[in-house]
Amino acid sequence: MTNPFSNPAPKPATQDGVFDDSERSLANRNSGTLLETLALDVTPTGAHYLLTHFDTPLLDDSTHRLTFQGAFTHPFEMSMDDIRARPQVTLPVTLECAGNGRASLSPRRYSMPWNCEAVGTYEWTGTLLAPLIAQAKPAKDVVEISFTGVDYGYDSGIGHFFGRSLTLAQLEELEVLLVYAMNGQPLLPQHGAPLRIVVPGWYGMASVKWLSSIEALTEPFRGYQQVNTYRYKDNDQDEGRPITEIRVKSLMVPPGVPDWISRARFVEPGPVTIGGRAWSGAGRAITRVEFGVDGIWHEADLTGRSSRYAWTGWRADWQAEPGTHVLQCRATDETGAVQPLDPPWDLSGFGNNAVQTVRVFVGD
Amino acid sequence: MTNPFSNPAPKPATQDGVFDDSERSLANRNSGTLLETLALDVTPTGAHYLLTHFDTPLLDDSTHRLTFQGAFTHPFEMSMDDIRARPQVTLPVTLECAGNGRASLSPRRYSMPWNCEAVGTYEWTGTLLAPLIAQAKPAKDVVEISFTGVDYGYDSGIGHFFGRSLTLAQLEELEVLLVYAMNGQPLLPQHGAPLRIVVPGWYGMASVKWLSSIEALTEPFRGYQQVNTYRYKDNDQDEGRPITEIRVKSLMVPPGVPDWISRARFVEPGPVTIGGRAWSGAGRAITRVEFGVDGIWHEADLTGRSSRYAWTGWRADWQAEPGTHVLQCRATDETGAVQPLDPPWDLSGFGNNAVQTVRVFVGD
Repeated sequence: MTNPFSNPAPKPATQDGVFDDSERSLANRNSGTLLETLALDVTPTGAHYLLTHFDTPLLDDSTHRLTFQGAFTHPFEMSMDDIRARPQVTLPVTLECAGNGRASLSPRRYSMPWNCEAVGTYEWTGTLLAPLIAQAKPAKDVVEISFTGVDYGYDSGIGHFFGRSLTLAQLEELEVLLVYAMNGQPLLPQHGAPLRIVVPGWYGMASVKWLSSIEALTEPFRGYQQVNTYRYKDNDQDEGRPITEIRVKSLMVPPGVPDWISRARFVEPGPVTIGGRAWSGAGRAITRVEFGVDGIWHEADLTGRSSRYAWTGWRADWQAEPGTHVLQCRATDETGAVQPLDPPWDLSGFGNNAVQTVRVFVGD
Repeated sequence: MTNPFSNPAPKPATQDGVFDDSERSLANRNSGTLLETLALDVTPTGAHYLLTHFDTPLLDDSTHRLTFQGAFTHPFEMSMDDIRARPQVTLPVTLECAGNGRASLSPRRYSMPWNCEAVGTYEWTGTLLAPLIAQAKPAKDVVEISFTGVDYGYDSGIGHFFGRSLTLAQLEELEVLLVYAMNGQPLLPQHGAPLRIVVPGWYGMASVKWLSSIEALTEPFRGYQQVNTYRYKDNDQDEGRPITEIRVKSLMVPPGVPDWISRARFVEPGPVTIGGRAWSGAGRAITRVEFGVDGIWHEADLTGRSSRYAWTGWRADWQAEPGTHVLQCRATDETGAVQPLDPPWDLSGFGNNAVQTVRVFVGD
């Protein structure tokens, strides 16, 4: 039976810059990184972006089980203690929501209206997934492995557990972690406790939280979040292309002090150091960040990254002259990919890696 | 010089249920408690509501100082180690934003558009403030003590550090804590690290974060956040009455599973246990919670509270029959104060303690 309160099929929002109660409630419920914490290599606990499709399950570590099932020749299940007894890896990983930047698209798809702040870097602790997959031995005709959480709900009238899949080839390339801790403490409920995966280099939808089942499949996974939502589409007739690796992007710590409501910035005149972070997917290095002042671009200095999958710090000096200014930043990665000035078109506002623009007023 | 990007004087929002970019950005930046965590006595770290007027300062614990200044006869300053060497107190305290529920007011003031989720309970650890005030010895003509953070910004074109005051009489009554830890770990940057106060029983605006200065005043404090913003006003001409103690209120964990966008609930038919939390200000006990189904009220069971300043658990059984239903909860405190069905009028949407309404669909 269909829930009559469920949102219907995705629709475009009615008007640019105008949001209804549901969009505003989603903005309220899902939280972005505080941009000022981009000054830090590691996002403070609790200040990482958070996008939760359904509810946060409150699970019991002592009874939680992970089952390897489906077309494995040696299926098994593990307790959390079993998983914590495996070789431990800690890896700083930058995760970004695929819908980050959706709010500025025109027309904008009806969903979580992010500005630019759906990104963060935690130090994730867990164990590598690959040896466990190998131990469970996928049967010869296996093509994909699916990951399913215990979080259940409705989207467009269709009830489903949140789930995603990766192909065997993708799993060989990606250093997928089975994660039970973050920033040196047990995984928090809202970030997937007691167990999640983190897929470094990919947008966040792949990093399934509240993980309970890993299934070997002999046909491509047809879960709702795999085939219906997270796809780049030009229009409603387009079947779309899967969303995978994070696109090159950068953000700055907005300088000076803010106005409470508009968030516009007030800066004292004189020398100002601007800093921020830049990142790209699939472990690609950032090779250049440019800092823009009123449309003129300057080279920024890169200050390094703490892992292959973590964002890179950058810094630029700016002589703030009285008046109003528009500050921007633009990153390039090792493949030569560079952020566009305008949002790339996508029907659902996915993969928007357009440059960030910060308005500042310099007093005198 | 005035920042031309600053929001002008507060204005009413143009239309019920329609939000502009600034309101939506505030909703995005400021985060509410996840209602499902109301199943717990203590809000998980990072899932507590967070309202930040300006930026989150990233301060150095080792160099941070708290100064007792102004009309104290024995002014002094303290390092964080000095403060941590004082007798330690841990107290679960329920904090709520004074603007919680603003989004449903009509007309709605232009500010952070909370639904109902700006509430949370952390276990705060610190030391009692009163002995330190006594040690600094307020001069005979002191009337108030002010608390100022290092966070600076603009509101309605006026630049100021966030600051609040309490009268000496209020300080005698309130068990104000100087807080440096929460939920068993060091205070997080976004919650005020390295030092804040927590004023139990009062709305959150009194619990100044990033505290650097405590000043004894011989005249009432005229800080912006004391005299301009946090006041109950009937209309724009009204000078207003100060906002102080939290009003009686309750929330439920929405039962069943959600729809992604509308957040409406889908429940299986049959017996369902509904749970939630109820609280009131100034240590007042909750004496009754009623659970409403389609306008019919039933008594809920109270399951106790972990401190005088923490919320009280409640629980009710419900036989879910197929169809659509409206669930509500309503608390009464020991003074007989009871939540209203409709929001009490306030110009800025402060102190809205109207009952929560959750729409559910029971399938068959």
